[in-house]
Amino acid sequence: MDTEYFFKHRHILGIEQLSQDDIYHILRTALSFKEISTRSIKKVPTLRGKTIINLFFEPSTRTRLSFEIAAKRMSADTFNISASTSSATKGETLIDTAKNLEAMHPDIIIMRHAFSGAPELLKNHIDASIINAGDGTHEHPSQGLLDMLTVLEHKGKIEGLNIAIIGDILHSRVARSDIRGFTKLGATVRIAGPATFIPPGIEELGANICTSVAEAVDGADVVMALRIQRERQNDPLIPSLREYASFFGINRKLLENAKTDALVMHPGPINRGVEMNPDVADGPQSVILDQVSNGVAVRMALLYLVLGGEKNSNDD
Amino acid sequence: MDTEYFFKHRHILGIEQLSQDDIYHILRTALSFKEISTRSIKKVPTLRGKTIINLFFEPSTRTRLSFEIAAKRMSADTFNISASTSSATKGETLIDTAKNLEAMHPDIIIMRHAFSGAPELLKNHIDASIINAGDGTHEHPSQGLLDMLTVLEHKGKIEGLNIAIIGDILHSRVARSDIRGFTKLGATVRIAGPATFIPPGIEELGANICTSVAEAVDGADVVMALRIQRERQNDPLIPSLREYASFFGINRKLLENAKTDALVMHPGPINRGVEMNPDVADGPQSVILDQVSNGVAVRMALLYLVLGGEKNSNDD
Amino acid sequence: MDTEYFFKHRHILGIEQLSQDDIYHILRTALSFKEISTRSIKKVPTLRGKTIINLFFEPSTRTRLSFEIAAKRMSADTFNISASTSSATKGETLIDTAKNLEAMHPDIIIMRHAFSGAPELLKNHIDASIINAGDGTHEHPSQGLLDMLTVLEHKGKIEGLNIAIIGDILHSRVARSDIRGFTKLGATVRIAGPATFIPPGIEELGANICTSVAEAVDGADVVMALRIQRERQNDPLIPSLREYASFFGINRKLLENAKTDALVMHPGPINRGVEMNPDVADGPQSVILDQVSNGVAVRMALLYLVLGGEKNSNDD
Repeated sequence: MDTEYFFKHRHILGIEQLSQDDIYHILRTALSFKEISTRSIKKVPTLRGKTIINLFFEPSTRTRLSFEIAAKRMSADTFNISASTSSATKGETLIDTAKNLEAMHPDIIIMRHAFSGAPELLKNHIDASIINAGDGTHEHPSQGLLDMLTVLEHKGKIEGLNIAIIGDILHSRVARSDIRGFTKLGATVRIAGPATFIPPGIEELGANICTSVAEAVDGADVVMALRIQRERQNDPLIPSLREYASFFGINRKLLENAKTDALVMHPGPINRGVEMNPDVADGPQSVILDQVSNGVAVRMALLYLVLGGEKNSNDD
Repeated sequence: MDTEYFFKHRHILGIEQLSQDDIYHILRTALSFKEISTRSIKKVPTLRGKTIINLFFEPSTRTRLSFEIAAKRMSADTFNISASTSSATKGETLIDTAKNLEAMHPDIIIMRHAFSGAPELLKNHIDASIINAGDGTHEHPSQGLLDMLTVLEHKGKIEGLNIAIIGDILHSRVARSDIRGFTKLGATVRIAGPATFIPPGIEELGANICTSVAEAVDGADVVMALRIQRERQNDPLIPSLREYASFFGINRKLLENAKTDALVMHPGPINRGVEMNPDVADGPQSVILDQVSNGVAVRMALLYLVLGGEKNSNDD
Repeated sequence: MDTEYFFKHRHILGIEQLSQDDIYHILRTALSFKEISTRSIKKVPTLRGKTIINLFFEPSTRTRLSFEIAAKRMSADTFNISASTSSATKGETLIDTAKNLEAMHPDIIIMRHAFSGAPELLKNHIDASIINAGDGTHEHPSQGLLDMLTVLEHKGKIEGLNIAIIGDILHSRVARSDIRGFTKLGATVRIAGPATFIPPGIEELGANICTSVAEAVDGADVVMALRIQRERQNDPLIPSLREYASFFGINRKLLENAKTDALVMHPGPINRGVEMNPDVADGPQSVILDQVSNGVAVRMALLYLVLGGEKNSNDD
């Protein structure tokens, strides 16, 4: 990376906008922040006096919590707004909601929304930094970045690796961020799942579509299962959870097709026995909980970097 | 103002209890706090170690957030209680809820309640300062004060101005706080709306009832539209939102009756195309977002002043 | 108490696991913290940089608030997760939820759950300290401890006292924690209530079952009424709230059977006129609000002690 590189993004809308240099800079920054969460006093003054709003139009525990922990460990002030209590229910437009928040001078708005592109829309109307915490089926960039960080930590590199992503690609913003990110860093991404869950055109993001899970997993360095939303149980797209599990669930036998040191990943929360068997989820190759830990570090890095990094921190 | 003036209110229940000196003192204090929200480090130690509880029996995003931001920017510890999770659902009386909170030694309870007078009731039973964040159709004093601050900033004075308030006066605690406040400062307040929305006796607060919106707006320095609650869409008090919009909605044509530099205001959230047209809401005369910004400053001032101001702050 | 005593518990699952020494150590520590909540600046740096998660699978205002106030007054960072928004609704197992939280490096998880034993289950899977904030009908140890602290403060001792606990023992985790605690400290606990509310085997915890409320209250030093859950109004276990009140409600006449200086207690929220009459709840013998105040102090002590007390605090 050029020594003159500097991180220029004020918003994190998706992996799409990030260069290879950007991604590595975020991952390196995240690595340097990981240690803070293992201290006895898990707090640095870096973002003291910054106002960070979690604006969640879809329910979330883990992503919201991960961002909130990241923010407070950097001493920012955090505020939670969830859809059910927001003015959205009073008929206000999204842009009006954003402009009203903006008028209270937040530094960062972390946003989750059911509509793809909602964070992009907001960005054009306000001065605060926007971090996309998941928009429709579009992107979930902090999840993509924590996945890359986890692979990088365990494999030492990402270039040249084979990443298998299995399951409901159609509805998954995680898959889209991962496909974009891993291919940008030089990995090969192979996807598999029920045909109804493979969206047309997904190969344009860089993914290789496999006709069977075995093919996707064959020789893989990473096997990632996506979550099947139980609320889709009656969805005509899959016949039944049991049938899904038997054809597409990651079990030990299937994993034998991958490299012996392949990593097992899942964005959580897991439906045990559906998209992944417990012996795999809890097995020696699983790095699922590392993903969660890395989530806090990646989010600390994003909060830090969108506000200008070193130039704008309160480390005295 | 007398140099021996000092702010003596421990509670903010309504504009009704405030003198002209009190109001100007709050506005001046708010003005001095505005700059904090534009700093890179938006935080002063003034209320460090103070316990401030947001006790909201009605849903609210923006008022709750505004108070929470105000409190945290002054370094207070904040706690949110919303009705749906409160003991109110377990049959506890309001006074018992308040006494229980009191036993945990809060410094300030910010309270919103569907019943007019609820904060007044509480005040008699607890030691903490009470700030009314909206009670029934009675008062919403911090909204009234932020409206006055916004007019003062843009017009340089309030005395002698003509303030038109249009819409659902009947259900509006904002209107009642504004009528009381602006008239106390020497402005003339003219109100207009559907006859069913003009409560009998409202002129006793100091408002002048106009028979048409055009009459109210004629020569006005400020045109404020109130929110029509969409949930009243089937309310017999108004025939339809469309009809309301055509007779009482603020549009550019109507605004031409006001002074050319008249301010356009709205307490938010706006129903665009109902009580106000987008070209007016987003036009050059609109100060709606200034109202929101001033809300944080006014609330910082109120939190500071009810706890004794200079005498009781932690500025080291 | 032995001078070499030290508090060795990393988790607070119930009074059951605590020795007499442990309980007195907690109560003494709580007493030393009470003063903090009466200061002008209610904040000490003791737990700065600690991450404390309130994980509530059952709704709670007062217990959650009490823990949150305790944590923030010791400068910890707090995070609230409530069941309705948690991954529990997405089909995740409790252990997966816990392990995921654990991966974000919390120091303490304060947990309320409808299932008896849920906190015990979690303890075996994670490194963070667990504090049980109420599990099913099992225990509510911080409530038991605040009750003991309140009695100790007012009576100067607990050994040898007669404690009457009246009402729905069957569903009450408070009763179970109180019975265990008061008997461990040498008090006699007498219980009374509708026969359907006296669980078989409760005497094994140390309680003496009385056949009438008058018998339980006779000569008592403490009369504690338990809450009748109004949602049980149509429960066949009690014929009606009115009948319950007339036979088992604590009123002034009944109280005359107790010692003249007997304390009146209630874990709140009170159903006035059901399990307790207002003249008793608000009378001179009532220490109900002291219980609430002591709740904050006890919880400060628990947060402090499970993290290692003096050895691990940030008092500079």
